[in-house]
Amino acid sequence: MENFLEKAKASSAIIATLDGKTKSRVLRAMADALEQEMDRILAANALDMKAAEENDLGGALKDRLYLDEKRVRAMAESLRQIAALREPVGRVLEGWRNEADLRIEKVSVPIGVIGVIYESRPNVTADVGALCFKSGNVAILKGGKEAEHSNQAIAEVLQNVLEAEGLPREIISLLPDSSREGVATLIKQDRYVDLIVPRGGEALIRYVAENATVPVVKHDKGLCHTYIHTEADPDMAAAIAINAKCDRPGVCNAMETLLVDREIAPEILPRLYDLFKEAGTQLRADERALEFIEAALACEEDWDTEYLANILAVKVVNGIEEAIAHIRRHGSGHSEAIVTEDYSAAERFLDEVDAACVYVNASTRFTDGGAFGFGAEVGISTNKLHARGPMGIDELTTYKYKIYGKGQIR
Amino acid sequence: MENFLEKAKASSAIIATLDGKTKSRVLRAMADALEQEMDRILAANALDMKAAEENDLGGALKDRLYLDEKRVRAMAESLRQIAALREPVGRVLEGWRNEADLRIEKVSVPIGVIGVIYESRPNVTADVGALCFKSGNVAILKGGKEAEHSNQAIAEVLQNVLEAEGLPREIISLLPDSSREGVATLIKQDRYVDLIVPRGGEALIRYVAENATVPVVKHDKGLCHTYIHTEADPDMAAAIAINAKCDRPGVCNAMETLLVDREIAPEILPRLYDLFKEAGTQLRADERALEFIEAALACEEDWDTEYLANILAVKVVNGIEEAIAHIRRHGSGHSEAIVTEDYSAAERFLDEVDAACVYVNASTRFTDGGAFGFGAEVGISTNKLHARGPMGIDELTTYKYKIYGKGQIR
Repeated sequence: MENFLEKAKASSAIIATLDGKTKSRVLRAMADALEQEMDRILAANALDMKAAEENDLGGALKDRLYLDEKRVRAMAESLRQIAALREPVGRVLEGWRNEADLRIEKVSVPIGVIGVIYESRPNVTADVGALCFKSGNVAILKGGKEAEHSNQAIAEVLQNVLEAEGLPREIISLLPDSSREGVATLIKQDRYVDLIVPRGGEALIRYVAENATVPVVKHDKGLCHTYIHTEADPDMAAAIAINAKCDRPGVCNAMETLLVDREIAPEILPRLYDLFKEAGTQLRADERALEFIEAALACEEDWDTEYLANILAVKVVNGIEEAIAHIRRHGSGHSEAIVTEDYSAAERFLDEVDAACVYVNASTRFTDGGAFGFGAEVGISTNKLHARGPMGIDELTTYKYKIYGKGQIR
Repeated sequence: MENFLEKAKASSAIIATLDGKTKSRVLRAMADALEQEMDRILAANALDMKAAEENDLGGALKDRLYLDEKRVRAMAESLRQIAALREPVGRVLEGWRNEADLRIEKVSVPIGVIGVIYESRPNVTADVGALCFKSGNVAILKGGKEAEHSNQAIAEVLQNVLEAEGLPREIISLLPDSSREGVATLIKQDRYVDLIVPRGGEALIRYVAENATVPVVKHDKGLCHTYIHTEADPDMAAAIAINAKCDRPGVCNAMETLLVDREIAPEILPRLYDLFKEAGTQLRADERALEFIEAALACEEDWDTEYLANILAVKVVNGIEEAIAHIRRHGSGHSEAIVTEDYSAAERFLDEVDAACVYVNASTRFTDGGAFGFGAEVGISTNKLHARGPMGIDELTTYKYKIYGKGQIR
C-alpha cells in the first residue's frame, strides 16, 4: 500500500503539469479504447452479473451494475465530452498588485491525489477517472465489490492508454486493497492523499467522515423541502410540487417534505391531493393538513426521513417564519424551494435558509451539475467548505498564488 | 457543553443575516468598550502575568502575554479596521442563466460556527472574535491557559456590547470547558461546529487534524526555500536571501533552506557568507557548499527542520530540476521562491512547485494577509482545500446558490 501511494503521489507531479491538448488527446484515446475493448469489458461485467445473480442482489442494484454495448458506448461518449471541457487548470481566478508592487495571481491548480469511494455503477470508474485526469489529479478509485471485475477491466483499459502515452499507470488506479481495511488505511493517508470523496450510503459516508484524516467532500443525504407561500401562484405551486416529488423520487434533490401556508392550504391541498393520488404518491400529513386531504398521520420521525421513494410528508405552517424554522431544524442543507409571488418573502427565504441551493419558483430537481451547466458532474456536495452543491470539474481544483516580483524585500 | 453548542448554533442564524451597517456599528462599540474597560482588562492581565512569573514562563512567552494601555488601544484600533472592511457576506461570486432560463447566483455566505484554538496573545481573542463577527459567523474561542484571565475579561467586554445591542452573547464566546477534554469534545461536534482553526504548535495541530470530525483549516509549519538560479542577479539574490532569513527568523514565512545553483555558487556563496555572518546567522551547509563557505556540515535532518531561528541550511544543486525535486521532497507547501532573470526557469518554477505561494524575485516574507492587501489576516493556511495561503476575511465565508425561477420544472 505504502509503495502504491508513493507512486500515486509521484505521478501527481506529472499529471499536474500536463498541457490541456495532451490531456484531451489521451481522454479521446481512452474513449476509443473502451469501445475497442468492448468484448473484454462485457465479459468482465458478465462475471459480476453472475455473482449478483448468485448473491440475490435486488433488481435495481443489478440494473445499476449491468453493462451492454450501448452503455459502454455511452461511457466512451462521456469521456469525449470531458475531453472537450474547458481546461480547468491555470485559470486566473483573481489578480492584483499589492502595495509593494508585487503582481499577485490566484491561479487554479490540481488538488493532487483524490480518493473516490463509490458503489455499483461501473461507468463511475471511467467518469471519475477522466474527470480527475482532465483536472490534473491522480485518481485512486474504490468501487463496490459487486462491480469488481467490471471496474478492473475498465481501469486496465484506461491504464493501458496511459502507458501507451508514456504516462504512469498510477494516474488512474483502483485501490489495491479493496477491503474494509484498505479503505480504513486510505482515508488516513494525509501524507499521500489530498481529498476523499465518498459517494454511497449514509453509513459509509459517516464512517469516512469520522475516521478520515484526509479532507472529505461528502455526498450526503438530501432532505429537501418545497414551501408553498400564501402568495404562491397555485398552478405553478402544483406543477413544482409534483415535479419535485414525482419526477425521480429516488434521487437526493427530490422533495421529501411539502410545507403549505395555512391560508393557502384550503385551496392548494385538495388539488395537490388529486395530483399526487394520480402519481401514486403515498402521503403522510400532520393534523392540520388532514383537514383537507386523506393521508396517514405523520409522526415526528417523518420530518427527518429521506424517503428516496414516492412518499411525501405534508405539513401546514403559520407563515414563512415557521417554514424557515422547520427547514432549519429538519433540512439537510441540500436544496430548498419557496413558491411565491411576494418579493419580500422570496428575499427572506433566499437569505435565511442555509442550504447549498435555495430556489424561488422552481423545482429542487435542478440541483445537478448538468442542469447547472457545468458540463460534467462530480457529485453534489453537502459540505459547506471547499465545494458546496453541484460539483463540476472546477471543484476538482484548488488554487495557488503566483507572485511576480522585481527584487522586493520587506 | 451540549446546551452551550445548541445556543451557539441558534445564534448563528441571527448573526448570519445581520446587515453590514449594524455589524460595523457593533464592532466600533466593541472597540470603544475595550478602551473604556482598560483597567479591568489590565487587572486581569496582571493576574496572568503573575501566574506566568510563578510558572517560570520564558521571556518571549511573557512578552506575547503582556498587555499595557498601548496594546489594548492597538486591539481596539484593529477592531475599528475590521469594522471598516468591505462587507464580506452577500458578494455575488458568479452568476449566469442555465439552459432552463433559471437565473443562478453564487453568493458568499457565512460558514456558521467557527472554533478557533490558539495560544498566548490575548489580542487574538478580540481580533478573531471581530473577524468572525464581521463575516457573520459565531466564534467559539479557546485560548491558552496562560492567558485565561485576560481572555475572559476581553470576551466579557465584547459580550456585554452584544447584549447591549440585543444580540446573543453566544455570538462570541470562550469554550466553557477549556481543558484538553473540552477541546477533544469540540472538534467532534460536526452537528454544531462548521470549521475548526487551530493556531499553535505542531503537536496541537496534528492532534486536531487526526481527531476532528469537523473540517479543519490548519496553520502549520512553513519550511520555505529560496532558490538562487544560475541566471540570478547576484545583488538581488543576496538582498532577497538575507531578507527571507533574517528579517524575522521566527515566523512561518521565513526561509529555512537556501538552494544555490552549482554554477553561481562560487560567486554568490562567499558574498552571502559575509552578509549572514554580519547578521549572526548560523549556517549548516552540504559538502559542495562547504567549498565556498565555512559552516557546520548539514545532516539529512536539516533539510526537514523548521528552525524558526536565525539558522539556515544551505545546499548546492545541479540546476532547476534538482531544486524543484528538493522542494517537493522537503517543502511544506507554504512559500517558495526562485531568483532568476531567465523567463523559462521562472515559468517552470511557478508551474511545478506545489505551494500556496510561489515567488519569482521576491522574498517569501510577503506571504501574509496584510502584505497581500487583505486588510486583516485570519492566518496562513497550509490546507490545500477551502483556503490556501494567506487568509483574509473572505476566507471566513463559504457560498450558496440562489436560484431565481419562474415556475421551471424538469
